[in-house]
Amino acid sequence: MKLAVVGCSELVTLAGPARARTGAELRELAIIRNGAMLVHDGRIERVGPRSEIAIDKDAEVIDASGRVVMPGFVDAHTHPVFAGNRAGEFEQRAAGATYQEIAAAGGGIRSTVRATRAASEAEIVAAASRYAGWFLRNGTTTIEAKSGYGLSVEDELKLLRAIARIGPVRAVPTFLGAHEIPDEYRGRREEYVELVIHEMLPRAAPLAKFCDVFCEPRVFPVEDARRVLRAARGRGLGLRMHADQLENGGGAMLAAELGAATADHLEHTDREGIAALARAGVQPVLLAGSVYALGLRQYPDARAMIDAGLAVVLATDFNPGSSPTPSIPMILSLAATQMKMTTAESITAATINAAYSVGLGGEIGSLERGKRADFVIHDCADYRELAYFFGVEPAKACYVDGVERFRR
Amino acid sequence: MKLAVVGCSELVTLAGPARARTGAELRELAIIRNGAMLVHDGRIERVGPRSEIAIDKDAEVIDASGRVVMPGFVDAHTHPVFAGNRAGEFEQRAAGATYQEIAAAGGGIRSTVRATRAASEAEIVAAASRYAGWFLRNGTTTIEAKSGYGLSVEDELKLLRAIARIGPVRAVPTFLGAHEIPDEYRGRREEYVELVIHEMLPRAAPLAKFCDVFCEPRVFPVEDARRVLRAARGRGLGLRMHADQLENGGGAMLAAELGAATADHLEHTDREGIAALARAGVQPVLLAGSVYALGLRQYPDARAMIDAGLAVVLATDFNPGSSPTPSIPMILSLAATQMKMTTAESITAATINAAYSVGLGGEIGSLERGKRADFVIHDCADYRELAYFFGVEPAKACYVDGVERFRR
Repeated sequence: MKLAVVGCSELVTLAGPARARTGAELRELAIIRNGAMLVHDGRIERVGPRSEIAIDKDAEVIDASGRVVMPGFVDAHTHPVFAGNRAGEFEQRAAGATYQEIAAAGGGIRSTVRATRAASEAEIVAAASRYAGWFLRNGTTTIEAKSGYGLSVEDELKLLRAIARIGPVRAVPTFLGAHEIPDEYRGRREEYVELVIHEMLPRAAPLAKFCDVFCEPRVFPVEDARRVLRAARGRGLGLRMHADQLENGGGAMLAAELGAATADHLEHTDREGIAALARAGVQPVLLAGSVYALGLRQYPDARAMIDAGLAVVLATDFNPGSSPTPSIPMILSLAATQMKMTTAESITAATINAAYSVGLGGEIGSLERGKRADFVIHDCADYRELAYFFGVEPAKACYVDGVERFRR
Repeated sequence: MKLAVVGCSELVTLAGPARARTGAELRELAIIRNGAMLVHDGRIERVGPRSEIAIDKDAEVIDASGRVVMPGFVDAHTHPVFAGNRAGEFEQRAAGATYQEIAAAGGGIRSTVRATRAASEAEIVAAASRYAGWFLRNGTTTIEAKSGYGLSVEDELKLLRAIARIGPVRAVPTFLGAHEIPDEYRGRREEYVELVIHEMLPRAAPLAKFCDVFCEPRVFPVEDARRVLRAARGRGLGLRMHADQLENGGGAMLAAELGAATADHLEHTDREGIAALARAGVQPVLLAGSVYALGLRQYPDARAMIDAGLAVVLATDFNPGSSPTPSIPMILSLAATQMKMTTAESITAATINAAYSVGLGGEIGSLERGKRADFVIHDCADYRELAYFFGVEPAKACYVDGVERFRR
């Protein structure tokens, strides 16, 4: 099965070193004007200027005239498997309640846990499929997908099985049993941590690639997070962390100590934390959507992180509470307007850097020979429009492994 | 031609008094669950519970099962006729330049004026048609559309003619010759105001329904705005104003003095200004998108305006510089997260109140017998999802005058 994508106004390849990009590298998109790309059996065979590329007669020709063609976005932090939604709590927040107040009253993550436990695996998959369509319409072809709304052995396994059934976007499964303390373990946090380590992890590990912990002083403090993550490593999982979102609780320092793949959020991380992440080579995953949607003002200090040499990643944090957006273009907009990142930096952060953060940097995240043909044709001629216009779904067509999965 | 829309999970009618809504009225959406609506020759014939409505055999039945059906959004402040875009300046802003610095260097509105003057009417219409598609995908069926990137007699007329050709969304034309001082009149503001009043207005008035002025101390101060708007009133036009966006320059007070239909922006309006608008019955048009996209922090004080009894309107301010979004749902999100408006208040502000602000309150903005059948089927079962999820285009199908103009 051969494809030839031709006429690309801008073929945004992100070709470059076989590692995540830092510093000025973040601004190098390796754009080919009037570019063409050949795909064979789901893999990229050739990328270059149209004038240098011969097209086989049996190739299906895809006309991308006047359009941007680029790798599908890789969304490195999402929570897409849950039941119900929290539009009601969103209204309460509009009326002045804080996220923490709602959580303390039994809302927040715990309300989604109740709904998710009551739902069947099929219902969870059906809801996730709706969201998968939204991801594609916004140009995302791979998501890192966390469990974490089950919080019992069986319900966490149900969510991991649901993640395995998400399609047609590619999903990288992360076990997040330590997302919140479920109602039945209120006041017994240590026992819940034992459950996560000794009951959940052994059965979840075969279904997951990473383990994540919601590390916050009032949820799982550093000591708990350390125990869970060490156990996860012992089970062969890569490590991710929710760190320093609501206050600086030492999350970034722990991520550095453990050499985690990522430390996510980091709104309250200080210079010391940033320096530690840099030394340890931990990738920061910045989640501007949740700062925005919670009506907060303190965004993570992306510029300081870039200056410190961190291989920054941007992601949506798609979830029913603090960040109900599946749109990486919206995150590019937030990164530009609220965090002063250029569009080129943001695109690198949401493609090749994100791919490396989920362990797939050799397979996806750029358009280079030998990689999987996960690419998107955007309905614009200038990549900068992706961050500039907002509230618009930009994708014209999306391909995963060379197969068209969305077109409008 | 008869339509019957059935199965509506929520038929959000906004039925109520035949005037713009204030105070607690803003929260009254008049929702009918399992509702149905009959349309005859482009007008609404009947609205009610499905059980009470008989459907003619010759009606086309539209199944809206599990979906929200509501009036199309009325976007009461847009600048949709221009050439080029300002993605490059957007990058400069991400790199730290302010909107005012860019404008002072010849960028901003003036750069769009150069591109717009160089473009043909057909090119302007083609660009606007792309944006019209985006408006529909986001559930907007009527836009107020301003000229203002021509700034010469012939170019302003070209833009007003282009507005008349926008479709399939309904467009209400506003003449905005006093949007900026064009390069050739730099340092000769008074002469440009004379041109607007004596050369542009007489020829623009037959093509427009409203006249608007960008009233800012450093652009068109209150004295200029007063002269232009009085002349416009003499030509039979309704009055709108850009007021107090960048500083409190007395814009709201002038709008009140003139009894304008609307005063738009109002980020820096004080209590006195709000009180004056209330006494004069001027509708505030709040434009959260531009505050967001400029990376600013001071949103208009929507709660104070609601408390003061103002018939608040929300709009996108769609334009290539300060607010490149065609999405009212994105504005609902901003209103909730940044201005603490509930979704019901915001929907009222962007439908029936907006309709009254453009002089079409008797024709559109609610689903009531006798009104035009401008309605949208949204891909959700709960209207609150429209503000809650962001970066998603919610419309499943849009109808203007009972004719399907968009479906996905």
